[in-house]
Amino acid sequence: MKKVLDYIAGIKPVDVSMDVAALDHINSLTKPPGSLGRMEEFALNFIRASNCIPPKLDKKTIFIMAGDHGVAQEGVSAFPAEVTPQMVFNFLSGGAAINVLARHAGIKTVVVDMGVNADLSGRPGLTDKKIGMGTKNIAKQPAMTNDEAERAIFAGIELAETAAKEGCHIIGTGDMGIANTTPSTALYCALLGLSPEEISGPGTGLDEKGVRHKAEVVKKAVALHAPYASPLDALAKLGGFEIAGLTGLILGAAKNNIPVVVDGFISSAAAMVAVKCAPAVMQRTFWSHMSNERGHKKVCETMGVLPILDLNLRLGEGTGAALAIWIIEGSVKIYNEMATFKNAGVSTAV
Amino acid sequence: MKKVLDYIAGIKPVDVSMDVAALDHINSLTKPPGSLGRMEEFALNFIRASNCIPPKLDKKTIFIMAGDHGVAQEGVSAFPAEVTPQMVFNFLSGGAAINVLARHAGIKTVVVDMGVNADLSGRPGLTDKKIGMGTKNIAKQPAMTNDEAERAIFAGIELAETAAKEGCHIIGTGDMGIANTTPSTALYCALLGLSPEEISGPGTGLDEKGVRHKAEVVKKAVALHAPYASPLDALAKLGGFEIAGLTGLILGAAKNNIPVVVDGFISSAAAMVAVKCAPAVMQRTFWSHMSNERGHKKVCETMGVLPILDLNLRLGEGTGAALAIWIIEGSVKIYNEMATFKNAGVSTAV
Repeated sequence: MKKVLDYIAGIKPVDVSMDVAALDHINSLTKPPGSLGRMEEFALNFIRASNCIPPKLDKKTIFIMAGDHGVAQEGVSAFPAEVTPQMVFNFLSGGAAINVLARHAGIKTVVVDMGVNADLSGRPGLTDKKIGMGTKNIAKQPAMTNDEAERAIFAGIELAETAAKEGCHIIGTGDMGIANTTPSTALYCALLGLSPEEISGPGTGLDEKGVRHKAEVVKKAVALHAPYASPLDALAKLGGFEIAGLTGLILGAAKNNIPVVVDGFISSAAAMVAVKCAPAVMQRTFWSHMSNERGHKKVCETMGVLPILDLNLRLGEGTGAALAIWIIEGSVKIYNEMATFKNAGVSTAV
Repeated sequence: MKKVLDYIAGIKPVDVSMDVAALDHINSLTKPPGSLGRMEEFALNFIRASNCIPPKLDKKTIFIMAGDHGVAQEGVSAFPAEVTPQMVFNFLSGGAAINVLARHAGIKTVVVDMGVNADLSGRPGLTDKKIGMGTKNIAKQPAMTNDEAERAIFAGIELAETAAKEGCHIIGTGDMGIANTTPSTALYCALLGLSPEEISGPGTGLDEKGVRHKAEVVKKAVALHAPYASPLDALAKLGGFEIAGLTGLILGAAKNNIPVVVDGFISSAAAMVAVKCAPAVMQRTFWSHMSNERGHKKVCETMGVLPILDLNLRLGEGTGAALAIWIIEGSVKIYNEMATFKNAGVSTAV
């Protein structure tokens, strides 16, 4: 993984020297100081993350990364694995929830085959970064080789680098992969020290018996591949191609000063790996929503992040990211478009 | 208030006979059942509130109602009363936070003079429903006469009736009025039995000493005018012209099956009065956000409502309503635009 480590060495802490000017401007706007709460915080964080004042936010892209998981063989999902390619077709024809919400928010979607277990080559509109026909079953062997993990991460990095060249101002993460709450849960257990019993959840709709079985599978996999030499070692052994791709996307965005909006349970696992590799990534990420998937609250608390929305979503695809990007865009418009007390002739506090 | 009572007698409970068809459709969409959480709930509630299936949501309006308050003389606000008309001018020229967020969400704004203490007659773009040059000081006398209260409520009702005739699909509430957290707090104390010490907050920015003084003023006013024969009696004695106008707007919207999105601390007081007068109003309201104004959480808990957003906003103007209307519109688009499992050829749960 030396190539990845070399790449991320270039991710520096954000430049906070613009803070004074940014806060002065925010406090000059026609509203009581602080009265727009987290919207003011988002504007400041966007300025820091994008390294640009005044902030610019026009071009918005969500990358929906898809992959299959050998661990689906263990019966850890309520839906059959064939749904992964079926949903990829749904994304391409514009009928999925993420298509609807991305259109609503004016966000471009890019659908990426990171490792779907079906031949999707030549599908119009699909970005082909396929590493393999799904990962191996983590209950029995490592999900991927180190080489595969590195290639998956660099696939995400390349997408971010291209987005940067095209002038993208914000990136959202999205995922599709039947059974992918299982590798995500395993990563949380391996890297945050959380317990499989506590954070395993129903995913797409397991019953309680199914959740207990899933927790057993996670526990077994985490024990089988321990110890973990590094976050990237855990990602290779327990992750998924789309999760590794998202980790790369987030690292690449951070390196290029593109703020990243992390979707839910799966994307948070990818972001956690990215943050553990390069802590300055945290300053460039927005956590879009508190997922209704059981373990997400505990994960967010452990990582010290407070998501923007809490709407009991647990769909993935980038749906929470789409909603949050629109909120963040609103905060940037507040910064750029509001009148000041002086210009509007409004009196300040007595 | 007989005229108001006669009007609201026409507000009937929502028709839930469409629920089966609505839920069948929601569960046929390409996502695990329930995985869009509250977005699914918003779509169903919008169908009920608008009495229309499939739901329609194109024309969106926020009414920003402005009024002054005699109680400002007691020193209960960090900003001087002259800010009320100054902010009305800011709304009309498009530089306030609500203008920015309403543009961002594609919402029309209507600015209404309900009782600003300045001569605003003939101002282009301003809707003139002025009842008086501000209310009386509630620490010393009733805010308004019964006749004034009735006229203020009917001003709001007329705006909702006109909006209904123009085909408006959703109404948001907004307010402006220096010192108006004080009458709102007094209404919560009088009608929900909450204590002034617990729910009085800084408003636009009082320090702790100022908050304690404000709580004393609220306590004095609530005791002075007790007992309260009805919610409308409390509204007349303790409210404000813009609050009464918002109560009327909400009642008028409910009567016309227009879903209403309630903004924050001030609008919630107006909505509380409307709900207490006609409980079926509750089924037609969305509560946009949990205000950072100290008492709002307790108010929401007491009323049994869970707001859509929690972003520490405490500005009013309809800013929280604008954000929430966009979220609700997203839920309607999810209902109307997503593919079904059958149409998309996606397998269902095993």
